[in-house]
Amino acid sequence: MSRPALLKLAACQYAPHLGDTDGNAARGVAWIDRAADAGAKLIVLPELASSGYAFASEEEADAAAQDGGGAILARWVDSCRRRGVYVVAGFSERRGDERFNSAALLGPEGLIGVYQKAHLFNDEKSYFQPGDSGFPVFDLPFGRIGILVCYDLWFPEAARVLALKGAQLICVPTNWVANFRRQVVDDRGWAMGNYAAVAVATQNQVFVAAADRIGSERDVEFIGASCIAGPEGWLLAGPASRSDEALLLADVDLSQAAARKQRTPRNHAFGDRRPELYSSLSGPAASTSE
Amino acid sequence: MSRPALLKLAACQYAPHLGDTDGNAARGVAWIDRAADAGAKLIVLPELASSGYAFASEEEADAAAQDGGGAILARWVDSCRRRGVYVVAGFSERRGDERFNSAALLGPEGLIGVYQKAHLFNDEKSYFQPGDSGFPVFDLPFGRIGILVCYDLWFPEAARVLALKGAQLICVPTNWVANFRRQVVDDRGWAMGNYAAVAVATQNQVFVAAADRIGSERDVEFIGASCIAGPEGWLLAGPASRSDEALLLADVDLSQAAARKQRTPRNHAFGDRRPELYSSLSGPAASTSE
Repeated sequence: MSRPALLKLAACQYAPHLGDTDGNAARGVAWIDRAADAGAKLIVLPELASSGYAFASEEEADAAAQDGGGAILARWVDSCRRRGVYVVAGFSERRGDERFNSAALLGPEGLIGVYQKAHLFNDEKSYFQPGDSGFPVFDLPFGRIGILVCYDLWFPEAARVLALKGAQLICVPTNWVANFRRQVVDDRGWAMGNYAAVAVATQNQVFVAAADRIGSERDVEFIGASCIAGPEGWLLAGPASRSDEALLLADVDLSQAAARKQRTPRNHAFGDRRPELYSSLSGPAASTSE
Repeated sequence: MSRPALLKLAACQYAPHLGDTDGNAARGVAWIDRAADAGAKLIVLPELASSGYAFASEEEADAAAQDGGGAILARWVDSCRRRGVYVVAGFSERRGDERFNSAALLGPEGLIGVYQKAHLFNDEKSYFQPGDSGFPVFDLPFGRIGILVCYDLWFPEAARVLALKGAQLICVPTNWVANFRRQVVDDRGWAMGNYAAVAVATQNQVFVAAADRIGSERDVEFIGASCIAGPEGWLLAGPASRSDEALLLADVDLSQAAARKQRTPRNHAFGDRRPELYSSLSGPAASTSE
């Protein structure tokens, strides 16, 4: 008799340090170890965990960028081998002459894949190219995963594309910021990203694991509130606090993401879609005015 | 000097009665009056406010259906004239030989428009045709509105289409049900529909007003939790309780939906979209398998 493949999933909330690439490599190793000690098999680290976030110049951004074979990812791959785990980690990627705000999927076998953030926020536009390769999915022993980064969650199209490709879990390395908001969290400590994560989960019947960072860099304040949502939307862990490190854990059976697609005997999350009514959502021409 | 057009918006939570069309007409009149007494200018009533929800036969469904010129809508138009208000109300619509789970936009000038629910839930598929005309928007003196009904909120494509057409407020007559869910609300009384409403609001920077019903019919239990969200996502009113009548009110300036599209000096809610990466979301072929 086959059993559901239970997976312990971890979202690590901590503060990478701007420009401290060696220290950030070590921080990642320490958090991978801490999550693996707790039994986690798939571990999500924050956005730009290799580099920090608030660059002030091209030179700073470039100094922190590495390619997929760079020293930081190599150290985290070593951790994956040593602990027998998989890691999704944000990193500043150099590819040729360009930089991307990317997330790497790493495992005992090495670098499995990279997602390049498609929707760039504010000054990221000065330091990174937007990813043009779409939203890839990756098959792991315990299920199929996709990756989004931070601001991508404000574009429900992206999560939907991943879900339609069969992603059962969307991993979200993130650096949610307090800046530009009149209200950052509500009376129970929920950030708007938490609401977006829950909605992505219930609308697509997928798991969502968002690992945010804390602390501040220059004029940018980060807001924590990492969370893990299940395929009916409800949070399985978090939101974590706004200011403290946190290791969020959840035992999940990713096959539930497929099983729950059949919402009722007569309703399927994707079968009920009306793609013929959504034609204004895709294609080359987008309106930016109202 | 021009002032922002402040609008008092109302979402009315109560229990229409299955098959009691005369009573439901009177209930709608009473709630329009109650909301108008409180100063509301735009008033949202629940889904199928004319007819009730849990039909058991074609005959029942047909007996409750009326066309856009039917007696119930005519009474509510009278209320709009008498009180100088606009109403969005769910009703069972007969059009030719077909029935639709529709919502009417009514005003002092009469029936302004109809939206026919595009995504049907469970047994609605036995009694209604899915709407094929897409997602219309309507210009009112205080702004542009769109309409979605209940399960439509699980398809973020629909809200996005409305927002791209310039909708500043999405009115959501709804009949959220407890059925088919292992968890209906969380520890603070939020239903999953509330999370979807908040996400729609923050992702599109629009207002969302969801008027749910309470009570039960046959084996269907309704869950209240009506809410009004602002264009940064945060709730302005609600969630209302699961079991009691409620009149939710919010003073809104719909022009904020446009103003807040510019999220940062470098980020526009629509300008940041990557429609060339969303091509799998539209078109005639939809996948229903994983």
